[in-house]
Order: sequence, then structure tokens, then C-alpha cells
Amino acid sequence: MIGIGLLGFGYWGPNLARCICEAEGCRLAGIADPDADSLARAGRRYPMAKLATDWRSVVTDSDVDAVVVATPVRAHYELAAAAIAAGKHVLVEKPMTSTVEQAQALIDAADRAGVVLMVDHTFVYTPAVQKIGEIVRSGDLGQVYYYDSVRVNLGLFQSDVNVVWDLAVHDLAILRFILDDHPVAVSATGSSHVPGSPENMAHVTLYYGNGTNAHLSVNWLAPVKVRQTLVGGSRKMIIYDDLEPSEKIKVYDRGIRVNGSPEEIRDARVSYRMGDMWAPCLGTKEALLTEIEHFVACISEGTAPLTDGQMGLGVVETLEAAGRSMRRRGQPVELQQLRRAS
Amino acid sequence: MIGIGLLGFGYWGPNLARCICEAEGCRLAGIADPDADSLARAGRRYPMAKLATDWRSVVTDSDVDAVVVATPVRAHYELAAAAIAAGKHVLVEKPMTSTVEQAQALIDAADRAGVVLMVDHTFVYTPAVQKIGEIVRSGDLGQVYYYDSVRVNLGLFQSDVNVVWDLAVHDLAILRFILDDHPVAVSATGSSHVPGSPENMAHVTLYYGNGTNAHLSVNWLAPVKVRQTLVGGSRKMIIYDDLEPSEKIKVYDRGIRVNGSPEEIRDARVSYRMGDMWAPCLGTKEALLTEIEHFVACISEGTAPLTDGQMGLGVVETLEAAGRSMRRRGQPVELQQLRRAS
Amino acid sequence: MIGIGLLGFGYWGPNLARCICEAEGCRLAGIADPDADSLARAGRRYPMAKLATDWRSVVTDSDVDAVVVATPVRAHYELAAAAIAAGKHVLVEKPMTSTVEQAQALIDAADRAGVVLMVDHTFVYTPAVQKIGEIVRSGDLGQVYYYDSVRVNLGLFQSDVNVVWDLAVHDLAILRFILDDHPVAVSATGSSHVPGSPENMAHVTLYYGNGTNAHLSVNWLAPVKVRQTLVGGSRKMIIYDDLEPSEKIKVYDRGIRVNGSPEEIRDARVSYRMGDMWAPCLGTKEALLTEIEHFVACISEGTAPLTDGQMGLGVVETLEAAGRSMRRRGQPVELQQLRRAS
Amino acid sequence: MIGIGLLGFGYWGPNLARCICEAEGCRLAGIADPDADSLARAGRRYPMAKLATDWRSVVTDSDVDAVVVATPVRAHYELAAAAIAAGKHVLVEKPMTSTVEQAQALIDAADRAGVVLMVDHTFVYTPAVQKIGEIVRSGDLGQVYYYDSVRVNLGLFQSDVNVVWDLAVHDLAILRFILDDHPVAVSATGSSHVPGSPENMAHVTLYYGNGTNAHLSVNWLAPVKVRQTLVGGSRKMIIYDDLEPSEKIKVYDRGIRVNGSPEEIRDARVSYRMGDMWAPCLGTKEALLTEIEHFVACISEGTAPLTDGQMGLGVVETLEAAGRSMRRRGQPVELQQLRRAS
Repeated sequence: MIGIGLLGFGYWGPNLARCICEAEGCRLAGIADPDADSLARAGRRYPMAKLATDWRSVVTDSDVDAVVVATPVRAHYELAAAAIAAGKHVLVEKPMTSTVEQAQALIDAADRAGVVLMVDHTFVYTPAVQKIGEIVRSGDLGQVYYYDSVRVNLGLFQSDVNVVWDLAVHDLAILRFILDDHPVAVSATGSSHVPGSPENMAHVTLYYGNGTNAHLSVNWLAPVKVRQTLVGGSRKMIIYDDLEPSEKIKVYDRGIRVNGSPEEIRDARVSYRMGDMWAPCLGTKEALLTEIEHFVACISEGTAPLTDGQMGLGVVETLEAAGRSMRRRGQPVELQQLRRAS
Repeated sequence: MIGIGLLGFGYWGPNLARCICEAEGCRLAGIADPDADSLARAGRRYPMAKLATDWRSVVTDSDVDAVVVATPVRAHYELAAAAIAAGKHVLVEKPMTSTVEQAQALIDAADRAGVVLMVDHTFVYTPAVQKIGEIVRSGDLGQVYYYDSVRVNLGLFQSDVNVVWDLAVHDLAILRFILDDHPVAVSATGSSHVPGSPENMAHVTLYYGNGTNAHLSVNWLAPVKVRQTLVGGSRKMIIYDDLEPSEKIKVYDRGIRVNGSPEEIRDARVSYRMGDMWAPCLGTKEALLTEIEHFVACISEGTAPLTDGQMGLGVVETLEAAGRSMRRRGQPVELQQLRRAS
Repeated sequence: MIGIGLLGFGYWGPNLARCICEAEGCRLAGIADPDADSLARAGRRYPMAKLATDWRSVVTDSDVDAVVVATPVRAHYELAAAAIAAGKHVLVEKPMTSTVEQAQALIDAADRAGVVLMVDHTFVYTPAVQKIGEIVRSGDLGQVYYYDSVRVNLGLFQSDVNVVWDLAVHDLAILRFILDDHPVAVSATGSSHVPGSPENMAHVTLYYGNGTNAHLSVNWLAPVKVRQTLVGGSRKMIIYDDLEPSEKIKVYDRGIRVNGSPEEIRDARVSYRMGDMWAPCLGTKEALLTEIEHFVACISEGTAPLTDGQMGLGVVETLEAAGRSMRRRGQPVELQQLRRAS
Repeated sequence: MIGIGLLGFGYWGPNLARCICEAEGCRLAGIADPDADSLARAGRRYPMAKLATDWRSVVTDSDVDAVVVATPVRAHYELAAAAIAAGKHVLVEKPMTSTVEQAQALIDAADRAGVVLMVDHTFVYTPAVQKIGEIVRSGDLGQVYYYDSVRVNLGLFQSDVNVVWDLAVHDLAILRFILDDHPVAVSATGSSHVPGSPENMAHVTLYYGNGTNAHLSVNWLAPVKVRQTLVGGSRKMIIYDDLEPSEKIKVYDRGIRVNGSPEEIRDARVSYRMGDMWAPCLGTKEALLTEIEHFVACISEGTAPLTDGQMGLGVVETLEAAGRSMRRRGQPVELQQLRRAS
């Protein structure tokens, strides 16, 4: 039975606490939050957990085998580093850290300490994204041409990070999961409609080495909520609509046929192929519960998590690069570090 | 009764012919097409019109007061220039020409000849776009923050122009109409999934001088057809879905309120405003018929068309700039010519 | 080459004329309409056809092998009977006649004359309904439990027939086609919101001998247009939405499992089965063209049409019974004639 | 502070408990459930409430001022009657009782005892239904022509009541609320697809004295969930879709104009009016919480509840009549009792 300490009981912490209690093989050993009200609330719901206003007492508690960091991003590095230093396994909220350097430092520290380091990219554990990954890896789509996502709604405006760090972060993790590849360059544009605030609307293009492209449209100032992604392949195409109650994924047997050789391409005719559509039935297990159980399994079996530190680092690097490109009105920024690493 | 000569009876020409016949104040005087089958088809439907395989005989016909150019883009300049030289009024398909220089030359020639020069940006004449323009100009939206459009479908792949020239051209004209402004810079990314062919998927960001941004997503390789545009303002927001049978425009009384001065913005709270939605009833008159009647009225009254040569030139300039940016992976390109002009 | 004479060039006649010209193996030999304007319009479009204000001259024309009756319902019987008497094959608009007696008389006359008698139940020839029929007959749905249709819109109010004769008539033909069975009883309710006018809103329940039920909701006074049908089977279920641009049919692998024997049914648990959804790609051929070609084939090959007089009679009988039930607030009416016949 | 005792902690009971705790002016004094597991669960969540396996101890508890009955329908009467006899106010789940006689007996007993008797028709307290009621009463719709509802999904099959008692019960309460009238007759058809089980699919037509009609389509065996209601008026029409995340109500300024007097109605032309659509912003307060607070207010102020015993009785009477009609294949059943009462 793995004892888990939870740092942060604000917006996302309560969900983590609930899933830690539901998951097999672990128990909620302690909760830390500097806010007295939040802590009191935590205590009423989880009387079995030790409570602390200072996270250090949870991190150093011998009943705690693993720590979950659910604080604002700027505190991720310090808390995760301290937990690793105390020999604890760590699950840290997304985005992993505020900078690439911090992310790399956590990876190195966890390697040295021999503990599991995992990042809470929850979407990767949804039945929908798991199914898309399965379809892509089966080769059914053929070559993946593009991933094009719209993720917009009204709010929540944040004062310390921009909309890319808040919303596009999901797509970056999903992309890493389904493509199993890192982008080589990024071009991003964005704008802020509240003077002095971070960008609340952005568009990001990602270039991959094999010709695949991705595009992410994110916006905190849209009249309605949209969560829609197209994944286009050489043989089939997917529409993934996360707001659909049951048919979140539709696979279209549609595409083009190119007639003629590349040399005579000017005269080549592109013809269209229209086939059936298929919406696979998806499981209904809550993604966060799946994820906590995966964390516990990785600790027990000593295996690497699906959303490990390297994925977290790759996402942070892309977020940083998107920010640089955005400030220069779309000027492309190359992503080299990870290509060196791999 | 204005005699109109139609050059080209291929894909769009038959629609123009039909509307020329339906419109008040004009008649279809002649039709030219180099293809014998197309010309025969034209003759069966419009026995009253003179037929010609050589466009020159229509352009120089004294029964012809105005010429409509409905050929491939690369021929627009030569035919329109000849018609102007012959003293005819000209309506030319979109995009106006292949280059900015050609567009400017047509404008100058028409000015000198004292004839009407109009570009067939049909979408501007739809009841939906007219209504959006009316709402924006009424001030109901407040300051326009952004225009964000998705215009994708499967096909029609073209071999000579890319998807921006084919699909984004509509948004560029709509933007010019509703914002009454030119972009100052453009960043675009795109890709071709058919080797050796023009880009079939592209994303374009436009920067305007007053802080408004626009983004256009266009794609010939999408599994389904989407025509959806968000227009966000400081007071209200619009969703324009051109595929909706009747409620193409929805106006949302939603937005944000910023509390606190810019100086204390880090502590300022952005709050959300949720109000009613309203879908105005739209007229049902065919846009192309409205447009032909507007062309006839401009000729009769000597007034400038809504979609005049300057608008056509601005669109072509932006298309060229988007192409340059796309080849450099999003590097921004400034649009200077029009700013000088205005 | 079968010569076809068209009686009536009002609302639907022009569509029939167009398809007669497009279809292989037949030609439009004559057109009759008492209205001079309609006839002149017909003449401009179809200069090869003989024109007549008196339908008798078309019916007796020796160039005419087959007659299409596209007049108001009340004239169907007289014209069709005269055409049969003249030895012509007949395609008559839906509903076939105003009364069951008239329908039976036409069937008998056509039998004696050895001519083809067909009813224009166009929906049966749509790719969507053909596909539903194919799926039902393949046994994929299992036992058909129900057919439940909503067919509502604003208008067109008619002054001589009620909404059941106008809209539910489509479902009655579709039902006959996919179930290959006649209803044994009908209960209908309806109301008129325009004093003195026929019912503009109605709900019809049909009982079949094998336990299948159907329900039709029709309405001329709905704010939006809906064309949606559920077909529930013991193994799968279909949603047929005729307004969907491409995915008109969705087949759901969903249903129930009943555990326990009927004796212990009170304790039996019904469990739910949730599987994939599949939307077959449908052909795009116009149904009316398919139908005209089928008419021509039936004449040439001496075979019985899919939508023959018996189907037309069954539909009329059900329409009459629905009217009787409606006037008695849903009191069920048995349908006996056809059961005797079969 | 009104002490509330809750009888039943199965499916709906936990929701009631939560809202009783959240509401102002009351407290959860006791919980009874014969099932030990359910009771233990209740105890963990609500340690302040007295627990009992025998409902009698809650009903007679002097700390309990009011009782909420959340048991299966067949037990409603006995428990509610006992609570009234003990001088407690009562809120009983829908449907109120198994028979009209039981409902009348409860009303009479509550009258004599001077306690509040309320029925938990939750839908009446939703912001959407409240808004529809407001619009209807304002006269904006004009005369209400019809209410036409589709309420279907897959499950939950019940073994003791049919689908009308489970699903149509909602519409009957909504109708009573927005029309402020009782139906005078009902015709219903239905079928069971599980041998020996209650009807799982039904269609109900309600006739009102003033010409308004209602139709309810309910089904436990539909492939997808639908909750859609049309309300047609002489001036405007409403679409109410309870599954829409935010625009649950759309008001269409559409309808017909009748030209000509009733005498010349055969020649009268019905013309169509197409105007704007408007979707009012709705509140987001949970309906059940609103309802509990209303129950408390009625007790405190001695006023009659919106969903009082008379409404509950009217609903039960209509449910019984629908069952009788269903067994006779739609034969209409008159509803007389309530007309006498009013």
C-alpha cells in the first residue's frame, strides 16, 4: 500500500484526492496546503490523512512514499525537487515546470534517486485519446498528415500564464502520445485583449521531421466552448470532439488518390474517396483514476510512466518556443534540444 | 439596358449567366469560351446571346457595354485589360489577378478610361455577411478583438493555386468589408500532402493596426465540410456558420469585465458576462444576383462598387504575402503598399 | 425508346420532366397542363415535347407509351383510368388516389389491360431508404421493434388534404418497403390550428401483426424543419436523419439483454449493450431519376414496380383509417381489406 | 430551523440529502433506509443525522418537522399518510402515489392536519421550465397551440412501472405548470418489447378544453438520448432542448398568418412569418435546491407549494388514464374528476 502525500488542495487537488482514495494499491497519507480554509475542507473529507500547512512536513513524512504536486506552476520545481531529494516518487501537475532547465534538473535528479517522475497530462489517459493512439499506431490512418485542434471557451483568464500554457498544453501531450515524435520547429501568433495581461488567444503551428504538421487554436475569449480536433491521414481521417456525449471519435474512410507520377504532377488529377464513417464505442473509466493507478503501477513495478519527465520536458520546451515565436509575430523557432537528446 | 459579355462558361460562368438574365437593367449579349462543348451548352441555354470561341470578338462588340471575366486566374489580367482598353466596364472573378502589379495596372487603366472595375467577391453580398457588417458598424460588438475562421472540406484540389488563393480569399474580402481596414502584417504556415503540388492546408494570421487580429484555417483535405467563423468583440461575440440552414448568425451577449487598473493588473480579476443569444432573421436573396444588380447600378449611376479594384488589390497583396510567409514557416511579412496608398 | 406523356406541369411536374429527359430509354413526348403560363414555360424548356391544354390529347397520342400523372390528388383517378383505358402504362403521384375504391379500380384496370401501374413514392428510391431496407432485410437489426418518425416544418399548409396525406404518406411507403408488411390497426390524433382547415398536426400509431409498431409525428406548424426517424431492433438500432448532409444513416450496435425467463420476469434484470456506431457511405444518385429508370425498366421487361398499385392502395387505406381515428380522438381503426387480400 | 427526516437513501435520496444540507433554514435531522449498506453510507456522509432502519422512528421523531419520502412509488402512500398523521409536513417523490384514490386521501389528510403536502416534480423548478412558464404567461407566444415532447434514451428499464410513469410524468407536471390547466381526455399507445414487462415505449396525446393539445413520446429503447420539446403558439414558438449545454430554450418569432374569413377558408391563403430567434440566458441554480428551499418557505410562511398535492393528483390521474387507453390501442379516455374539482 503506497502512501501518497498531496501538495495543494485548491482547484485540481480535490479531484486528485478523490482518485487517490478510489485507486487500488495506494492510500492518501497526507495533505498540505498553506490556506487554512482549504486544509479544513480537506480534513472534513479525508479524516484519515495527516494535514499540514507546510508542505515540507508531508514531503519528509516516512508514511509518504510518493508525492503529488498540485500547486501553481511556479512552485512545481521547488516542491518536486525537494520530494525527489527526500527519496519520494513524484507526480507533478502539467505543465511540468516553468522552464526547460527546471524540467531537465528534475529528470536528472529522479534518475539519480531512482524514483518515478511522472507528469499529470490527464488527457493522455482518456479513453478517446487512447483510442486515437491505438488507431494511429495500427496504421489504419496511413501516414499522419496533420493534427488540427480548436480548444476555445469563455475563460478562465489567468494572470501568470498565457492561454498556450493553459490550453495548448493538452494538445502538446496528446501529440507526443499519438505521434511518438517531437516537433522540430514552431511558429505561433497570439494576442492579448486585456492590456498588460498574457495572451488570451493564440494559434500555434508545429513542424515535425517527417512532414506531419500540427496546428492548435486556443482562446479564452470565445462565445462558446469548442473542443474539436481533426487528424488527417493518407488513408483515413478522424474527428475527435470531446464535448460529444458518446461519439467523441469518428473515423472517416475518406481521402484522396493521386493519379500520375510526381513528374507529371501538374496534369495529375486528384480524385476523392468517400467511404463509411465509424464511431468506436469508448470506455467510460475516469481518466484521472486510470492515471493514478498507472502511477502506482509504475512505482510498484519500477517501470517508466507513459507521461514521464521526458514528455513533460518536451511539452515545456515547445511552450517556451511558442512564446518566443508569438512575441515575434510568428517567426519560426527551432526546437533542437530534444532532437539532440533522442 | 446594359449589354453584358461573359468570358468563360466553365464552372462559375453558368451561374453568372443565369443571374445576368435574372437581374433588372441588363441582358446577356455575348458569351465566349474556347471550348466548343461549353460554348454549345451556353448556346442551348441562351439562344439570344452571341457566341464566340475568341474572347476578343465579345470584348470589341459594340452591343457589349460591360464584360464579366470568369476564366482561370492567370488570364484575368489580359482579358480585363483588353476590355478596359475597349472602353468596357469590367467585373472580374476573384482573386482579381495573379500579382499586385497586375491589379494596380487594372485600377489605373480603369481610372483613366472612366469605367467601372469590380471584383466578384460574392460572399460580401450574402445576407449573412451584410448583417455581420451592419452589426459591427453599429457598434454593438464594441471593439472588434478578432475574426477567427475555419473553412475546410475534402477537395477541390487545384494544380495551379494553393488553398489560400482558393478558400482564404473569401475571408480576406469579408474582413475588408466588415473591418474597413487593411492588415499591416501576415504570418502564415502551410503544407502540401501531395508531392509537387501547391499547399492544400494553411493557417494565416493577420495583424491590423488597431490591435484586431484575424486567423484563417483553410484545408482541402478535411473529412467534413466546415464553414465557421467567430467574431469577438469587447461587448458581444458572433458565431457565423454558413452551413446552418437558417440560423447562420448567432450574436452572443457575452464577454469579460476587467476589474482594476492596468497597473494593478496582476491582481485584477477578469469576470465573465453571460447574456442572451440572438439569431437575426436573414434575407434569402441569392448573393450573386444582388451582386450583378449592384454592378449594373454602379455602371448606371457612375458610383464605385462595394468590391472595387482597391479591395481586389488588397486581397491579392495579402495572398502574395501569405505565400511568402508560408515558404518561410510563418516568418511575418509586412504589408506596406496599401498603407502608403491610404 | 419509350415515349412518356406528362400530365401536370405545376410544382412537381418540372422535376419529373427533367428526370424523364435525363433517364435512359425514354423521351418526353408530350406535356399537358390547363394553365397557359405553365404550358408556355414547359414549351421553352422542352421544345421537343408536344404541348396540350387538354390532357386527353396526350393520353390518346400514339407517340405516348406511358403517362405520368402529376396533378392534384382529386384528379389522379380520372386521368390514370383514362390512360389505362387507352393502353398506356401509368406512373401516378402519391398519394395514389383519394379513396381506396379508386385505388382498387385502377389496380384492376391495369391488370386487365396488362399495363404497368406504378406510384411515385419517391422516398423509397433514395439511397438512404434503400440502405435501411437492405440492413433490415439482412437481419442485422434483428427483430424490428419499432419505427418512430418526426417529420415537421413550417408549411406548406394545404386547403384540401390534411398533414397526414401530405407528410405521413412518405413514412407509410417507407414502412411498406422496409417491413414488407401492412399494419393491422391504426390510432391517430390530430388538430387544426386554423379554423375550418384540415388538421395541420397529427400523430399516428400503426400496429403490425408481428408486434412491430410505428409512430409518425407530422406537423406544418413547427418552428424548424425536422426529418428524423428511429428504427429500433432487437440487435441494433438506426437513426435516419434526412437533413444530415452526408451521414443520413447511423447504425448503433446498442440494445438490451434480458436475463431470466419470462416467468421470473419481475426479477429479471434488463442489461444494456453499448457498441460502435457505423454510418454507411450512401450513393448520391437522385431518387427521382432512379425511379423513372425503374419505371422504364418495368415497362421494358414486364416486371412489377417496387412501388406498385398494391403499395399505393395500402398507403391510401391507412391514410383513410388515420383520418377516421383522428376524428374520434385516437379510437383505433382496424385495417382489414389488405389482410384479406394477402 | 426546520428539521427534515429523509425516508429512503437509494437512487434519489442522496441528492435530496445534499440539497437539504445546502438549503437555508433547514437541517437533515434523520435518515431511514431498510438497507444496512445504504444506511451506513448515509451515516458516513451525514454524521449529524439520526439513522434508522425503520422509517417509523424518523416519522415520529420530535426533532423532525417535515418528512421527505424517497422510496419506490408503491410505498409513497403509506409513509406519507403516516407522516401526515404524525403532524409532519411532507414532500413526496414523483409520481405522488400509485392511484388517484391514494393521492386524494393524502390531500384530504394534509388539509385536515394543516400541514404542507408537496410533490417532487423537480423539472418545474429548473431555470428552463421556469423561463418557458414566464414566456407563456407573458402572452409572447400568443395562444398555445401545442406542446410536443420527445423524451427517449436507452434504459433504465423498470419492472414495476411503465415508461409513462417514469418519463412522461415529467411532461405532465411541466404541462400543468405552464398551461395552468388539466387535460380533458387522453389517447395513448404503447408497446413492450420485453415479454411480460411493462410498456417501454409509448406515445400520449392530451386534449385540453381550450383547443390546446399535447403529445409525449417516451422510450427506454432508443439508441441515443433525446430531450426535445416544441411549444407552438399563435405568435411565437419555442424549442426546449434539455441536453443543450447553454442554449436550452430558443424562441422563434415564426408562425402563420391566415388571410380571409373562416367562411371563405377554402380559398384562404396561409402565409408564413419568419423572424428572429432568441435564446434567453438561463440561471444555473440547481433545481432540486430551489425546490427544497421552496418547501421550507411554504412551511415557514404557510403557503401552498407550486407543485402541491392537487398537481400530483392530476398527474397520477392522467398516468392512470394513459394506461387504460394504451391497453385499448389508443381509445380515448376522459378525465372527469379534476374537472369536477375545479
